[in-house]
Amino acid sequence: MRPRQHISTVMVFLVLTPSVARPQMKSVGIDGVRTADSAWLKAYAAKDLDKTMAFCDEQSSVLPSNAPLATGKKAIVKLFAEAFASQDLTWHIDKAGVARSGDLGYTSGSYVMTFKDAIGKTLTDKGKYLTVWKKQADGSWKVLFDMFNSDLPSFSPS
Amino acid sequence: MRPRQHISTVMVFLVLTPSVARPQMKSVGIDGVRTADSAWLKAYAAKDLDKTMAFCDEQSSVLPSNAPLATGKKAIVKLFAEAFASQDLTWHIDKAGVARSGDLGYTSGSYVMTFKDAIGKTLTDKGKYLTVWKKQADGSWKVLFDMFNSDLPSFSPS
Repeated sequence: MRPRQHISTVMVFLVLTPSVARPQMKSVGIDGVRTADSAWLKAYAAKDLDKTMAFCDEQSSVLPSNAPLATGKKAIVKLFAEAFASQDLTWHIDKAGVARSGDLGYTSGSYVMTFKDAIGKTLTDKGKYLTVWKKQADGSWKVLFDMFNSDLPSFSPS
Repeated sequence: MRPRQHISTVMVFLVLTPSVARPQMKSVGIDGVRTADSAWLKAYAAKDLDKTMAFCDEQSSVLPSNAPLATGKKAIVKLFAEAFASQDLTWHIDKAGVARSGDLGYTSGSYVMTFKDAIGKTLTDKGKYLTVWKKQADGSWKVLFDMFNSDLPSFSPS
């Protein structure tokens, strides 16, 4: 396999639209995790850092492409603040599922992200994401893991 | 945020060692998902395609960096066969958890991968992974999602 030269960035991919679900596990709780995703999206789209961070706690990890893992509120808020300043995202949920016990769930799908390069040119990245959600004692959902990577090979001659 | 020029490849990151666990959810089932990871690693390290694929079914998705999603046995076996031919991996589990109902779990941690570039030079990539596991009717675990991305920014002047 040849190495690939890829133009990427530290993308913060967050949440999911309440679109067509293809649940892989029977559960009455799928609507809950999908609603949480939708609410996280709403907060993200508004670039409301406080509301976006309300879905994270000290156990949360965001796993960005081409950057280290960010775990806990302090690390994640830095990542999100940078993202709000530099990126626009759209996304589409493809799959969602919740354990029978309703305390652990996942969502996954695709994203499109646009950002400016160093000279102001708009670049577009397309990829996929996987989010693992944990239900809290009060019935709300928080993010355990949010991960994404690019579909684009971005080959260059080598 | 500046765009980043990143040398990457289609990495197939698979499984996890039975190392130090820091479970985030109380469950008696964490050992099960860790054992499954360890068994998947054993199959992968042996480059045994049949045994590796035994952890996947038509619902499984592998989400490689810089390549499209691979869902189902046909797509995944192609990805794994390419990986066996071109890559060496080590990995280390950092976190694992299982839902109270024991039917859904996750593992996450870090990897180091080496591969040859087009002129035979050995390159090293470091990154992180997130795997979601689904327990089967027979008590075994199979992969729902396996995702990974690089930690390396691989900046180039721009």
